Amino acid sequence: MTLPNGWTPEAAREKAARAYELDRKHIFHSWSAQKSLNPMVITAAQGSYVWDGDGNRLLDFSSQMVNTNIGHQHPKVVAAIQRQAATLCTIGPAFVNDARSEAARLIAERTPGALDRVFFTNGGADAVEHAVRMARLHTGRSKVLARYRSYHGGTDTAVNLTGDPRRWPNDHGTAGVVHFFGPFLYRSQFHATTEAEESERALQHLEQTIVFEGPSTIAAIILESVPGTAGIMVPPPGYLAGVRELCDRYGIVFIADEVMAGFGRTGKWFAIEHGGDVVPDLITFAKGVNSGYVPLGGVAIAPHIAATFDDRPYPGGLTYSGHPLATAAAVATITAMAEEGIVENAAEMGEGVLGPGLRELADRHPCVGEVRGVGVFWALELVRDRATREPLAPYGGSSPAMTEAVAAAKAAGLLLFVNFNRLHVVPPCTISEAEAKEGLAILDHALTVADGHTV
Amino acid sequence: MTLPNGWTPEAAREKAARAYELDRKHIFHSWSAQKSLNPMVITAAQGSYVWDGDGNRLLDFSSQMVNTNIGHQHPKVVAAIQRQAATLCTIGPAFVNDARSEAARLIAERTPGALDRVFFTNGGADAVEHAVRMARLHTGRSKVLARYRSYHGGTDTAVNLTGDPRRWPNDHGTAGVVHFFGPFLYRSQFHATTEAEESERALQHLEQTIVFEGPSTIAAIILESVPGTAGIMVPPPGYLAGVRELCDRYGIVFIADEVMAGFGRTGKWFAIEHGGDVVPDLITFAKGVNSGYVPLGGVAIAPHIAATFDDRPYPGGLTYSGHPLATAAAVATITAMAEEGIVENAAEMGEGVLGPGLRELADRHPCVGEVRGVGVFWALELVRDRATREPLAPYGGSSPAMTEAVAAAKAAGLLLFVNFNRLHVVPPCTISEAEAKEGLAILDHALTVADGHTV
Repeated sequence: MTLPNGWTPEAAREKAARAYELDRKHIFHSWSAQKSLNPMVITAAQGSYVWDGDGNRLLDFSSQMVNTNIGHQHPKVVAAIQRQAATLCTIGPAFVNDARSEAARLIAERTPGALDRVFFTNGGADAVEHAVRMARLHTGRSKVLARYRSYHGGTDTAVNLTGDPRRWPNDHGTAGVVHFFGPFLYRSQFHATTEAEESERALQHLEQTIVFEGPSTIAAIILESVPGTAGIMVPPPGYLAGVRELCDRYGIVFIADEVMAGFGRTGKWFAIEHGGDVVPDLITFAKGVNSGYVPLGGVAIAPHIAATFDDRPYPGGLTYSGHPLATAAAVATITAMAEEGIVENAAEMGEGVLGPGLRELADRHPCVGEVRGVGVFWALELVRDRATREPLAPYGGSSPAMTEAVAAAKAAGLLLFVNFNRLHVVPPCTISEAEAKEGLAILDHALTVADGHTV
Repeated sequence: MTLPNGWTPEAAREKAARAYELDRKHIFHSWSAQKSLNPMVITAAQGSYVWDGDGNRLLDFSSQMVNTNIGHQHPKVVAAIQRQAATLCTIGPAFVNDARSEAARLIAERTPGALDRVFFTNGGADAVEHAVRMARLHTGRSKVLARYRSYHGGTDTAVNLTGDPRRWPNDHGTAGVVHFFGPFLYRSQFHATTEAEESERALQHLEQTIVFEGPSTIAAIILESVPGTAGIMVPPPGYLAGVRELCDRYGIVFIADEVMAGFGRTGKWFAIEHGGDVVPDLITFAKGVNSGYVPLGGVAIAPHIAATFDDRPYPGGLTYSGHPLATAAAVATITAMAEEGIVENAAEMGEGVLGPGLRELADRHPCVGEVRGVGVFWALELVRDRATREPLAPYGGSSPAMTEAVAAAKAAGLLLFVNFNRLHVVPPCTISEAEAKEGLAILDHALTVADGHTV
């Protein structure tokens, strides 16, 4: 059977063998010890599926790094990239370009409130770097509050804001980052028993942190609207509005990190929309903005922050800010998502298929401690013991139980996004009901494997 | 006349007007005060030329941000992007992909010594972030020495390593960066009168810095092989070899930043090759690797550094590391540069046309204090007074004289790269003799304007 990119199985196998050989010789991989790696080859992808080096088809419930919101190889986005490549691949950031302008318009149209100005970057990490820089210069303050259980990117400021173990080895003393606990009822830091109590106590905790750190020293609070890699904890009603209120009360810039949660992932254009009419001062985005077809990130900026740099130069920039090929892919992606109701599909699949399906699996599998999520953004918290909630892998680590469950899913044709003791079900926003059900069936099998490791 | 992308002048003018309107409404620009900006629209580009919103053709002696080494819209690279877009736009960094593997092979083939492993990033800044992280983890030390008159990127670690005024507003205390002076005879810090003396004294100064900072605290020395934005100071013979020797003596990792100088810019694949057989431990690259057609950067890694992460996980990574579309563009770029002798062309144009032509201009124009460079990488140091060497604009600022000269060049159809009191002549590596001469003639005119501001 020919692959969707037109390669024969023989050609694909040959290319895969060569790619693997060169990879092991020349590629240095992210977040890994290099020697024992045995990475999987991907030769082709289409919609919700990818093909490995042996021609096996796998359902992609990871959306790679939770970025292919529009699915793999969407024909309209591919065509837009090809068209823009023929027109103009690259220009410097100082110039005006139609693809860049139109992408900014389409994003500004969708951001909440009056966040109608966009600074483009190459990805999420540098979007966070620049959002923090804007907040510091706007307020004249230096500290930034970030929550534990968060990920904000891999460059120096971004990784030091991060509240997961990836920060530890990179903690070289970036001044002025203070971490706090956000709401997470299943593992409450506040001894709460209801969502309302968790929200109220988390806000009290945040206010105490502000007061004791000194409000006049705090430039910004950065918060993933729905924390992603850290566990997809949808904030309880009222929490984001409460953060907005605290920011207003103390003159603090509210940065909503929507790198993973934005552009359809939660069944809305931006996840912050779930919080009512809460409008942050800055939104960082990347991934879903063009599904990562071409590297692109950015910061959406409210007028009062942008005005700080009306007459005073903004001290930041990069060669590929607003790259034509990347922004043309964003224009095509956002347009296709709007025309084809892809954000609505994510909401429906979450409410109608994934949510009920995952809850049904949780009922039957003792290894599932909690299911939580929204849209196509779901986490299964796997535990050794439902009563004690002891995780199936330690914080910051893995375990044979997790490895076996993930391997079982992969062998049966399903890619998942895995973090410590959690399986994340984060398929493209374009996923069909049949594909969602196919994935749930394989997940059923993988959870049975994990069940074997419960008490 | 139809533009090279097939647009009629009327269509181009309409698109340009709309792009400008949306840009002013929605785009936040790099390094600028936003209100008074009047950015130029670029609608098309081909080879060494770009077209503005009114259909005027301009010779691009800036290579945008000194990144279009292969010229604009090279047909082989455009075709490779279109082909890869149809095949596979994006995959996560954990997988193996043929475009990524092949790009790494082609880069490893060209790096000096045994730097045969590549970690891909989205651009130069994050390449520097990761190179520094590798050096710190490899040595277990924290300090990094960087030179004044340097630029290493805009994220937190990178911008704090930077030795030009763009660091000042972003200096939020990244721990462990120490700056030193590099060789620059025209404005010698060492009271030297010959290249040999400047080299020797700059090495003494660097060694004193190492000794007084404490060798056992220093992880790395980072150095642009030829400093770029800071002034294109080609290092005197022996300097880079001397730095290598100091690094060896004191157990310090040598990071050569080749983001701007690499991939043909100096008439070699890497600028460090001008220093004899000096091999750094890490090379950072971006820009020329695929001429910025798709955002891409990376770190080339020597085996002894890579081995540090054989069994110990490397604590860094990013969503688009080794992006298929970006690496496919690198494969096509490097292949075309090799097949078409583009690196050799850069060397010949430098030695045969640009070097002699610029020196001849310097002889006739009192505003030119010094001409220096190599390949297609040249700087004109403009001065108010040749005797005192007083710059035509202050360090970190501009002046009416500079603005007028640059405007005169632009009005006559020439884009230059400008920094403080310097004009940089940095055309694509593909530039023809006729184009180089056309640019020199316009430059002659612009320098006459600047001459009016000399004493």
